[in-house]
This record gives sequence, structure tokens and C-alpha cells, in this order.
Amino acid sequence: MTTPLRLGIAGLGTVGAGVIKIVQRKANLLATRSGRPIEIVAVSARTRDKDRGVRLGDYAWEDDPVALAKRDDVDVFVELMGGSDGPAKAATEAAIAAGKDVITANKAMLALHGQHLAEAAEAAGAALRFEAAVAGGIPVVKALTEGLAGNDVTRVMGVMNGTCNYILTRMETAGLPYDEVFKEADALGFLEADPTLDVGGIDAGHKLALLASIAFGTRVDFPSVELEGIERIKIADIEQAADMGFRIKLLGVAQMTGRGLEQRMSPCLVPANSPLGQLEGGTNMVVLEGDSVGQIVLRGAGAGEGPTASAVMSDVIDLARGTRLSTFGQPARGLETPKPAKSAVPAPYYIRMELQDKPGALAKVATVLGEAGVSIDRMRQYSHEQVTAPVLIVTHKTTREALDAALNGMTATNVVAGKPVAIRIEAV
Amino acid sequence: MTTPLRLGIAGLGTVGAGVIKIVQRKANLLATRSGRPIEIVAVSARTRDKDRGVRLGDYAWEDDPVALAKRDDVDVFVELMGGSDGPAKAATEAAIAAGKDVITANKAMLALHGQHLAEAAEAAGAALRFEAAVAGGIPVVKALTEGLAGNDVTRVMGVMNGTCNYILTRMETAGLPYDEVFKEADALGFLEADPTLDVGGIDAGHKLALLASIAFGTRVDFPSVELEGIERIKIADIEQAADMGFRIKLLGVAQMTGRGLEQRMSPCLVPANSPLGQLEGGTNMVVLEGDSVGQIVLRGAGAGEGPTASAVMSDVIDLARGTRLSTFGQPARGLETPKPAKSAVPAPYYIRMELQDKPGALAKVATVLGEAGVSIDRMRQYSHEQVTAPVLIVTHKTTREALDAALNGMTATNVVAGKPVAIRIEAV
Repeated sequence: MTTPLRLGIAGLGTVGAGVIKIVQRKANLLATRSGRPIEIVAVSARTRDKDRGVRLGDYAWEDDPVALAKRDDVDVFVELMGGSDGPAKAATEAAIAAGKDVITANKAMLALHGQHLAEAAEAAGAALRFEAAVAGGIPVVKALTEGLAGNDVTRVMGVMNGTCNYILTRMETAGLPYDEVFKEADALGFLEADPTLDVGGIDAGHKLALLASIAFGTRVDFPSVELEGIERIKIADIEQAADMGFRIKLLGVAQMTGRGLEQRMSPCLVPANSPLGQLEGGTNMVVLEGDSVGQIVLRGAGAGEGPTASAVMSDVIDLARGTRLSTFGQPARGLETPKPAKSAVPAPYYIRMELQDKPGALAKVATVLGEAGVSIDRMRQYSHEQVTAPVLIVTHKTTREALDAALNGMTATNVVAGKPVAIRIEAV
Repeated sequence: MTTPLRLGIAGLGTVGAGVIKIVQRKANLLATRSGRPIEIVAVSARTRDKDRGVRLGDYAWEDDPVALAKRDDVDVFVELMGGSDGPAKAATEAAIAAGKDVITANKAMLALHGQHLAEAAEAAGAALRFEAAVAGGIPVVKALTEGLAGNDVTRVMGVMNGTCNYILTRMETAGLPYDEVFKEADALGFLEADPTLDVGGIDAGHKLALLASIAFGTRVDFPSVELEGIERIKIADIEQAADMGFRIKLLGVAQMTGRGLEQRMSPCLVPANSPLGQLEGGTNMVVLEGDSVGQIVLRGAGAGEGPTASAVMSDVIDLARGTRLSTFGQPARGLETPKPAKSAVPAPYYIRMELQDKPGALAKVATVLGEAGVSIDRMRQYSHEQVTAPVLIVTHKTTREALDAALNGMTATNVVAGKPVAIRIEAV
């Protein structure tokens, strides 16, 4: 095969520019590895006149990404615009309708419309690939869809938002409160335009929902991901966790349980000496567990120009080599609708609360826990100078339902100030 | 595609039985993911009458693996016999000559005959795949050949022999000498029939040579791998390394340098807090570095029935899905003959020697080092009750040539007893 594979790239931000640099600088290497030349024929972005550090003069320009997606000379539409709806979705749909293969880094679009788009692609005989949408440069979509295809996957876990991991690591190492580190991260340009996408766990939740679909043969079900952000984590939590041999990570967990598909993206305590616990700064880690392979751990840069462009190129080269795979590893029409199971697997929890300094206050809390069926492994009350005292409790294994009943019960007493913070302790 | 993919499996040891179990137990899952049924039609092994824990009655039996490889009803010949030559090679060649795809877990055969076999497969239009040959269940061949295909790979590193890592870890944690732990490992069945394959670094060297071929587009060149086993490592080395914040691992490193392709499999000191340094027991780890993606770390079980069978099934499912790739990621005939470069990249070294208790002995050693151009970062001489004193030296960065000159110079003096042990300190 010496016919070139012709790309149309929509979105010329960091990743788009990174892809163009690779295609331009490594033409020979790519052709050798792919068995055919890889060419860019047309590009599109919101602003035409902007220095992106790459030559664009050889490529046709389209103001409208939908027009780009439909061009006769484009074999593969590369969607790097972002946004779950709007132009990204319209252009992706147009490309598929025109029978073109699509490569996207858009986790939000796939988390919300992945089923619809994958079915459309299948019907049109087009490929829809998204290695760059999950965990940046780590080839985890490939590892799960292909490398572990002979396994019944039992669990997928991951720290997949570098910004959150940066914030949590920085709070620990610098001893700075959340608000200050958040401002630092913002100043460094680490945060999305809507920071809730990062710190609220939404972005990482999108990625988890995509991996869960591949792992369990189920339709992407982002709305069922239990989401909890890192906004309420205090330095005290991080320090207490460290005292007990744990670190706090925004951890995604997806597993198929007897009660259904459990998907969570929330702060968790993980053992400090585990690979997940040792993860620093903006690095991502995904843990894949299969019945034959056991545990596979993948670690690498979760964002940035080079790593994300590397993942896009992996999909490009696969298509150039003629590899054809279903979007989620099996025909989209056959994917099952998952039954969501809220935190089905019992676990111990860490609870921090502010207790009113009244006689019998601790007894009331203990009673509420006991009535909910939650038993206490460890408890500490700290000396204090305010009207409330910080109290930490580590429970034995309990269900999330029982825990929530206990937390609600605590709030209903008049001895707990504000809402208690509860963090799951995950066995990793 | 609903035509089944028909396998002929030669070699019914642990891995062969593991593959059969997966094909039998997961027929529906495999068919869903592959788009077609996967069937076993024939098997072959040295002994027919042996309980392998799997039903074989449905499959044709061949005493001769070559006959199996040529069968008209076999689409894919799965070679799980082992051995670099003999029946494994003969049957693989027969399968390729008959135009059949081949999947093998045989690192020795590919390390020695990979170029010849890959060229033959290409000429015949057959695929030759080997995910299971490197690092067991870790999908590292796929990650490198496909996931990082858009990168100029800069370095590949790995701890890829679980037995050696077990021995080194156990020496450290139990404080037992090499000989005793070696006997333990033997009793546990961890060692190959020829233990030199494990502890001499040969098995891991085979794996490194295969990864280097993919990474750098060069012909497999196992004879040029600088091999050094773990036999000479003493508890004292492990303890000294720990004191300095290092751990000793049998580490493979392949990198393209200005002077040629450097391939080493040897004990190295790596930082104790690095992912490689934290690796325990039989687990494998491969580190892939690319110019765009940065550093990717992959960790998982490097051997055993389930993990290795999982890797074989990854290749089976790829072929069932119609994926066609060159064995080493690009046409074999175009692979360059590498120019071997012995430890081209300078590094600091750890040196341990037994010094005769004579006046001026240490001065002689220091003089020899200085004359070879090797400068000393740290040195310790220990108190002793024998006629020789243990001396440890950590050098500044030096070339291997300069180091070897110094080591030879030391042996030529009359003050160093035996041969000094030198261990490279690798930046990971």
C-alpha cells in the first residue's frame, strides 16, 4: 500500500500543533512504520491568523470544521477541538456520515455521545478511535481493547487527572491549603476554562466511563459515575492519611459487581507504598485487572502536547496500517446497558468531622454509627481551641449505604458542625 | 466475518494449557470481541498421555509439530514448545512456508533467528507475532510497536526476568547469600532447566534484543547484548547500595547512541524510590521512552500460566480481528544492521574489591583509577579481621572503557584479591 493516508485536522491548539509537528518532522519514520505515507491535507480552527509554531501553508484551510470533515480528499477526520457538543460533535457526525474514519481526543463528547457515535460509525463502516482521550500518552485504550482482550476484566482503576494529582501532591509537600494551591495551578495554566471539570472529577469521570465500556462490554454510562471532587480535602486529611500510611488520590474505580456496574471517581485513601500511592504531580496511572493477566499498571504523562499527540499518532498509524477495530472493542449495538450499582463493594472509610464541644457529643456520634451498622476501627479526637473539635474515625468495612445513613444521622444530631468528610479507603 | 479462526497449538506445558482453558471457557467473549469464533483444531506435545487439566479430546493430535504446522485446517500455528532451534524452529518454518500465521512465546528462537523468520513470514504473506515472548502478561510489544509508533524511541529499559528479581529481593529482605536463595528458587521451580538462562541474564537479554529491534528499526542483534548475570552479587553489595539510596536490579537497557546501538543486560544500581527500584519479587517492569510521549512505565506479571496465556490470546484476537503488522513494526528486509556500541553512555559505577592489608595498598588502587581517568566520588574501607579488607568506591561518571582499564589495572597490582565487582549506576 503506497496510497497516502490523508488527514484533516480540526482544532489547532497544543495537541493539534503537536500532531502536525510529528507528521512534518517524521515523514520517513511514519511511512516506514505504517507502510504508506501520512499526509495532512486540510486544517480548521477558530482563528486563522495565529502563530502556532508550525507551517500550515501547504494545507487547505476550512473555517468550518463540518466542511473539513466532509472533504473528498480527507480519509481521516482528526477532531481536536474539544467540547462535548457543538462543532466537535457536528463535525464528527458529518465525517462519519461521509464514511470517513475519525480520531478524537474528546473524552467529554464520547462520554456523553459515544454510543450514538460508535453506532453511527459502525453503520457507515467507519472507524472511531480515541486513544488520546484517556490518560494522555499512556496507550491504555489499546492495552485494554487489544492487549487484555482475552481477559474477563475484573477492575479498572486510575488516577487520570494530572491537575488534581498536582494539587493534592503540592498540598502535601508544601503544606499549603487547597485554595492557595488551586490559585497556583490556575496561574500555571493547569486548569480547564471551567475548573470544575478538573477539580470536580468530571474530566477524569469521562475517562473512567470510556474505559468501563471497553472493560465490561457495556454502553458508556457517564451519568452513573459517582462523582466527588477534591475541593473539600484539607491538609489535615492529607496529614492524617499519611500518619496511617496512606495518601489521598482522586481515584477512579470501575468494577462489575453482583449488583451491577460500579463506577466511582472520588478522593480515596490508597496505601502510600502502592504504585498509585507513590504517584507524584501530573503523572497519570491506570491499573487494569484481568482474570488471566492479573494486575497491569501503566504510568505516564496524562496530558501535554507531546504525550497527547503521541496517542493521536498511535491511532493514525493503526488506521494507516489497516487495523480496523470497533470503537469499544466489540460492536456498539451489542454493548449492554449497564445496571448502575452505587459503591456496591464494601470498604473501610475515613471520616473527619467538627464536633461541638458539648458533653456526650462523641457518644451521640458513636451511637449514630452503631445504629447505621457501621463499626469503628480507630478514632481520634484532637485538642482544640475553637468551639468545635476535629474528630477522625476510621471505620471497618461497610457499605456506602450504611455510611451515608450514618453521615446523615450525624448531620441530624446537633453535635456535628457542618457536613462530615468521608473518604473511601481503597484496596489497590 | 463469521468464519472461525482455527488454531493449532504445539507445546502443552503451562502456557499451552492456559491458552486452551481461555479458548474453551471464554468462547462467547472471544467471539464477541474478535467478530468471529476462535477454535482449536489440533494440538501437539512430546507426551500424549498426561493430565494437563484440560480436555483435549475434541482436537486432532499430532506427534510431530511440523505436521501440525502444515495442517490444512490450521490458520494460525501457536508455538509454545520453547528452545531456540530444533522442533520449535522447524515447525515455525514449516508453518510460514505453508503461508500460515504464527504466534510464539519463544524469545530464544526469535532472538537468534528473528530476522530470518520475519523475512520468511513477510515473503509468505504470513504474520509472526510474539507478545508472550517479552515480559509475560505486560502488553509491551503492542505498546512499543503500535502505541508509541509515532515516537523516535530514545531508550528502552526493563526488569524482565522475574527469577532474578526474586533472588535479589529475597537476598535483601531475608539477608541470605546468593547461593542459598538460588537453592530456594530452584526448589520452588522458579529456575529454567539451564539456570544460566535466568541468572546469567540470557533470557532477559533475549527479550531486550527483541524490544530493541522494534524500538530502533534494527535487526535483532542478541550476540551484541553485553550480558552480565547476578551470580557475583553479594549481600554486602545490596546493603551498601541500600545505604546510598539504591537497589540492585538485573536491568536491561537499550539505547541508540552516536556511536551505535548500546544493549546491556546487567546488574545495575537504580534509585530505591524509582518505579524500577520499588519493584518486588517476580514482577516485571518495562520503561519505554520516546521523544514525544516521554516516559511510559508498564508493570505486571512477567511469567506464569495466566499472564503468558493472556499475551498469546492478545495476538490470537488481533489476528482474528484481521490486524496485520510486520513482526518488528516495519518490513523486516528494511531493518538496519545495528552497529554495536559497548556501554557508550558514561555513568557512575559502584566498585567493590578485597584489598590486601599492606601499606600503600589503597594508594595503588587510587593511582590506577586516576591513570585510567576515572575519578572517585566516594570511597569507604571497612574494618576487617581477614587478610583482606573490603573497599567500596563510587566513581564519578566514566566510560565503560575507562572503567575496564581501571579494573584491569587493579587486577594487575598485587594488592587487590580476586576480581573487583563493578556495578553501573543507571539514571532511570
